[in-house]
Amino acid sequence: TPAPAPRPGAIPPPDIVRAAYAELVVTDPAASREFYVDLLGLVVTHEDEDAVYLRAFEEYLHHSLVLRRGESPALAALAYRVRSPGEVDAAERYYRALGVPVERRAAGATRGIGPAVRVVDPLGFPLEFFYAAEHVPRLHQSYDLHGAGAIARLDHFNIVVPDVARAERYYRDLGFRVTEDIRGADDTLYASWLHRKDTVHDIALTGGDGPRLHHIAFSTHERGQVLHVCDLLGARRRSAHIERGPGRHGVSNAFYVYVRDPDLHRVEIYTTDYYTGDPDHPVLSWDVRDNQRRDWWGNPVVPSWYAEASTVLDLAGKPQPVFAREENSEAEVTVGADGFSFARDASPQVGPST
Amino acid sequence: TPAPAPRPGAIPPPDIVRAAYAELVVTDPAASREFYVDLLGLVVTHEDEDAVYLRAFEEYLHHSLVLRRGESPALAALAYRVRSPGEVDAAERYYRALGVPVERRAAGATRGIGPAVRVVDPLGFPLEFFYAAEHVPRLHQSYDLHGAGAIARLDHFNIVVPDVARAERYYRDLGFRVTEDIRGADDTLYASWLHRKDTVHDIALTGGDGPRLHHIAFSTHERGQVLHVCDLLGARRRSAHIERGPGRHGVSNAFYVYVRDPDLHRVEIYTTDYYTGDPDHPVLSWDVRDNQRRDWWGNPVVPSWYAEASTVLDLAGKPQPVFAREENSEAEVTVGADGFSFARDASPQVGPST
Amino acid sequence: TPAPAPRPGAIPPPDIVRAAYAELVVTDPAASREFYVDLLGLVVTHEDEDAVYLRAFEEYLHHSLVLRRGESPALAALAYRVRSPGEVDAAERYYRALGVPVERRAAGATRGIGPAVRVVDPLGFPLEFFYAAEHVPRLHQSYDLHGAGAIARLDHFNIVVPDVARAERYYRDLGFRVTEDIRGADDTLYASWLHRKDTVHDIALTGGDGPRLHHIAFSTHERGQVLHVCDLLGARRRSAHIERGPGRHGVSNAFYVYVRDPDLHRVEIYTTDYYTGDPDHPVLSWDVRDNQRRDWWGNPVVPSWYAEASTVLDLAGKPQPVFAREENSEAEVTVGADGFSFARDASPQVGPST
Amino acid sequence: TPAPAPRPGAIPPPDIVRAAYAELVVTDPAASREFYVDLLGLVVTHEDEDAVYLRAFEEYLHHSLVLRRGESPALAALAYRVRSPGEVDAAERYYRALGVPVERRAAGATRGIGPAVRVVDPLGFPLEFFYAAEHVPRLHQSYDLHGAGAIARLDHFNIVVPDVARAERYYRDLGFRVTEDIRGADDTLYASWLHRKDTVHDIALTGGDGPRLHHIAFSTHERGQVLHVCDLLGARRRSAHIERGPGRHGVSNAFYVYVRDPDLHRVEIYTTDYYTGDPDHPVLSWDVRDNQRRDWWGNPVVPSWYAEASTVLDLAGKPQPVFAREENSEAEVTVGADGFSFARDASPQVGPST
Ligand SMILES: [Ca+2]
Ligand SMILES: [Fe+2]
Ligand SMILES: [Fe+2]
Ligand SMILES: [Fe+2]
Ligand SMILES: [Fe+2]
Repeated sequence: TPAPAPRPGAIPPPDIVRAAYAELVVTDPAASREFYVDLLGLVVTHEDEDAVYLRAFEEYLHHSLVLRRGESPALAALAYRVRSPGEVDAAERYYRALGVPVERRAAGATRGIGPAVRVVDPLGFPLEFFYAAEHVPRLHQSYDLHGAGAIARLDHFNIVVPDVARAERYYRDLGFRVTEDIRGADDTLYASWLHRKDTVHDIALTGGDGPRLHHIAFSTHERGQVLHVCDLLGARRRSAHIERGPGRHGVSNAFYVYVRDPDLHRVEIYTTDYYTGDPDHPVLSWDVRDNQRRDWWGNPVVPSWYAEASTVLDLAGKPQPVFAREENSEAEVTVGADGFSFARDASPQVGPST
Repeated sequence: TPAPAPRPGAIPPPDIVRAAYAELVVTDPAASREFYVDLLGLVVTHEDEDAVYLRAFEEYLHHSLVLRRGESPALAALAYRVRSPGEVDAAERYYRALGVPVERRAAGATRGIGPAVRVVDPLGFPLEFFYAAEHVPRLHQSYDLHGAGAIARLDHFNIVVPDVARAERYYRDLGFRVTEDIRGADDTLYASWLHRKDTVHDIALTGGDGPRLHHIAFSTHERGQVLHVCDLLGARRRSAHIERGPGRHGVSNAFYVYVRDPDLHRVEIYTTDYYTGDPDHPVLSWDVRDNQRRDWWGNPVVPSWYAEASTVLDLAGKPQPVFAREENSEAEVTVGADGFSFARDASPQVGPST
Repeated sequence: TPAPAPRPGAIPPPDIVRAAYAELVVTDPAASREFYVDLLGLVVTHEDEDAVYLRAFEEYLHHSLVLRRGESPALAALAYRVRSPGEVDAAERYYRALGVPVERRAAGATRGIGPAVRVVDPLGFPLEFFYAAEHVPRLHQSYDLHGAGAIARLDHFNIVVPDVARAERYYRDLGFRVTEDIRGADDTLYASWLHRKDTVHDIALTGGDGPRLHHIAFSTHERGQVLHVCDLLGARRRSAHIERGPGRHGVSNAFYVYVRDPDLHRVEIYTTDYYTGDPDHPVLSWDVRDNQRRDWWGNPVVPSWYAEASTVLDLAGKPQPVFAREENSEAEVTVGADGFSFARDASPQVGPST
Repeated sequence: TPAPAPRPGAIPPPDIVRAAYAELVVTDPAASREFYVDLLGLVVTHEDEDAVYLRAFEEYLHHSLVLRRGESPALAALAYRVRSPGEVDAAERYYRALGVPVERRAAGATRGIGPAVRVVDPLGFPLEFFYAAEHVPRLHQSYDLHGAGAIARLDHFNIVVPDVARAERYYRDLGFRVTEDIRGADDTLYASWLHRKDTVHDIALTGGDGPRLHHIAFSTHERGQVLHVCDLLGARRRSAHIERGPGRHGVSNAFYVYVRDPDLHRVEIYTTDYYTGDPDHPVLSWDVRDNQRRDWWGNPVVPSWYAEASTVLDLAGKPQPVFAREENSEAEVTVGADGFSFARDASPQVGPST
């Protein structure tokens, strides 16, 4: 069991704008580049022996994804952008007060990124906070470069944590707000979605053995672009990359597909969630027994989607130990012969209290 | 084992235009009406104690689907339209020569339909051939009536037959042309698609215990309409009607979803296949081991889709006996632990010779 | 000429969340209701003799549009939501300091809205600031209620002002940020787009005789929904409501159509602009001679779109006087024989500096 | 005035399958190639000094468009595919009986095309009839090659003729069937649409000075692909190629845009018309005063669309003389100050008798 998460005292959290980039360790950069660039259509801002820096068509910061060469697949960092240079310092103060590992990083420590702070947060994840970043051309109207599955921007991170309630409390302390969650009859919290920008989430918390990275998600503008990603994978005889979907989420109401990269990092292509920016935005709470919560069409979640996730690293690049979830597992209570998600006829006719 | 199919001699087959309507026996007409009208959005041309007559928005014949009240769910007839009144007589001559049960039906025997011939064909299916039919308003530009999942027209029938090669020969004799098929390495024929109108098919043959009706299919114009059907079923908490998909077919390249009606009759919503009207249209032949053949994205086919199908009736309304398929079963060779469709990593990188 | 706009001193502006609702005076409520509800598909939260209160499918506040019965068509108020009850007081202080008319409104003065402040702002527009509002069911997943042209939410207001630079300064003082603008070679400012929420705009400023309301805009999720609004108007033989488009904007990159209501109030249906929430979001500045700025496909802007706009009222319900624009008119420099927007072959090959 | 069209006697017309390819004379092959390949995305089957042979993604015949280098822009041939080799001979007999110029062409006279017959038909157009053609790979599932505006296949030709009634009679004699037309109160025929394959048309007849080619049309599967063609032209700063639309046709109910190539040949990108293959398909007749007939949304037709068209050649490559239309001009009765198409408020509330 991980130690109870420390709570911040009088130190205010940094003012976070949004989920900004992920740094993934990949074992075969050429294979990864082919996946993210040739198949998913992301744009290369820079590449060298060590890493590939990618962005989507509407983004003007240097990158929203870094693929860094390494021995074993892992998450090296999830980076949040903060509102000003001073908020980088605020992040340092905040995490030092929490007593977790904190590291200042000079401008350029990650190419294209200004002065930053990296920490291992109380949930065990390597986070970065930065404000300054190199601007590059925004290609949002370069329709001649957009494929039929054009990706617009990074949208969110999804992480696996053993104790969702604890993780939610930590993220609320950080200034995030819950938009939706999944709960059991006994009020067990199975998953939670929290946001800073005006979308359903910048971070989602999935109950399970953790800390692990469940997925990163990119947005498109329309459902047709999500479908084309799948059609193109089929055309290249690479449909094995498709893990789950396409489908319509219950939670978030977004249209989605999950694909796995060559190192089995999971990527979601995601579109058309809803505006959440009002201060009294109501939380939509789903019953874990509702088999439309994860797929509005009731299609079952494949077991790998619940079970598999990426290793996360500490600041020295060492894998973080994984702690087992102690509460009920969503997969166990909902998948297969003893669960109820497949048993559609018997599924409870419950839904969110809209 | 069914007797070998008789072959026609000098008698020419009727000139068939297309798959025109299906008559299904349903056990709870109110429930069926709710499904087809309130959920799928078909238009009621007429309804009475006995039956509901439905059409889609682009159709101007009286109906493309009849739901007739009965004791047990079944297929009462698959109706083909022929090119002229004389071709109804041609159908009578043709089937009499084949020595199968043949019945003349006066105009109005089925409401809205002119003089017709019904037969039990050599495959054991109740077929109807008609030319004359009552015209009703075509609502193709009544966008104020179209829901977001608007269905345009009936597209095809799909039937289960134990011997696909024999059934294909019979349909070719009837003047249909093959567009695509699924074959094993040993040249076992697992399924075949044949057309009269300029689309991929009017009839598909699925290998299995038969005669049974696998599904009827309606067309929409765009993929978004198929997706909306699913979203709407979710909104009504009726996602249990969704059996398989949405997905992109390998065979036919169409976008699809399969839903089951209250009697478990299967209906496909289908869109964007391709033009096939040229006389030398090449056959596209798929390897049964290709796990993109039934879903281009490699998503597995649910077992019920292979196993379940509707009973078919003879002309007296008695259920036809079902004969077991003797050749390999597509489900057995491709589904589950001993099959290969799920084993994507090991899936053969084979595809149609485009 | 209007008096120079007063500048705020030490009084901070209210913290505005977003454009929240518009109150339009309509002369025939039944006709307006038919337009907004039967044709555009907005949802009625409440209606009485005096007014109809409408919202879109993703909205949970009481309304985003009020249609109030009156003698002459006009804009009664543009309402901004602020971040907390205290910010309503902040708005009062701010506008009192500016020396413009200010009126406190008790909860319920507008049905469904809590305590509010209304002002005539220095540009001559009747604005409201509120925090509290009645919550009603959010119908974002009620796909059974969504038409094929389902509108998700109110997006922005567009107003006509004689002096765009002055109006832009005023809105920047209020805490809005510019995302795009249109400028002449001489740096004449023709139009400007400013936002609070994470979209391209909450308010757009269009140069012309003002103060007048140019339009209010609602968002859909996809382009197909905008197209369906037009198809449905055609089906009802009401295409005369369509004034301009559908098209793709250059500015904002959004897909749009403009329709006119029975009183000629202009409504835009708008979709797929881009995320703007980062603090260093770069301004995209367009040359007024660029004939793709207002329509990316170069389709000419119809003269009425430039010339016509709605009267705005003061707090007593009297029409505000209109002041002529003194700088160049965008319509005059770009439309017709002496302009250059129609002269595509000669159009300068200029574009935004992406 | 052209001479009255000869009528066929006892000689049966050839059995035509569909509109199959157009051969256009272009003055700058590099510019044309850039337009059709880089901007519209057609696939090059072959190119040499003399000509470029293009096809769309679902086509397996050698080409559906030939761009041949020449001095002046013109139409060299409209080619119809016939049902068998013998039907090529039937075409020869038919046109010899009509007394018009007829020329046998050996296989390969046009690259990829077998033995053919070319004629100058009674309307003055250079037509070709062929059966045999080289097969090339069909790329319908090569989604990795499809751009976001992927074109599926050639759909139809549209020609300008002075006397539409005469031209319609000629095409009916040839075995085409009318699906829709535009008529005046005095029964003047302004335009007519006729088909062989199961779509709204293979040929459309537009009243005006002729013989001239109005346009050729390619199909996509969905509206989004038509929109992307426009977005891409905007991105390349080539929006001047867009002449009219995008829009929804009244006639045919199809979604469309018209673009002009570098020689001002007009190309329509067209999608989602309807099935017409039944023998009793009803004709939909539109009133020329109905301003939704040419654009369902009532958007006015630009004058160039009515006025401009391509020169057509005889078999020797000489321009055909153009005869003036003697009946009313659709443009004159419907465009501008004296017409009624712009005057939406006064537009008659008439529509097709659906
Ligand atoms: Ca899957
Ligand atoms: Fe996600
Ligand atoms: Fe099917
Ligand atoms: Fe707008
Ligand atoms: Fe056309």
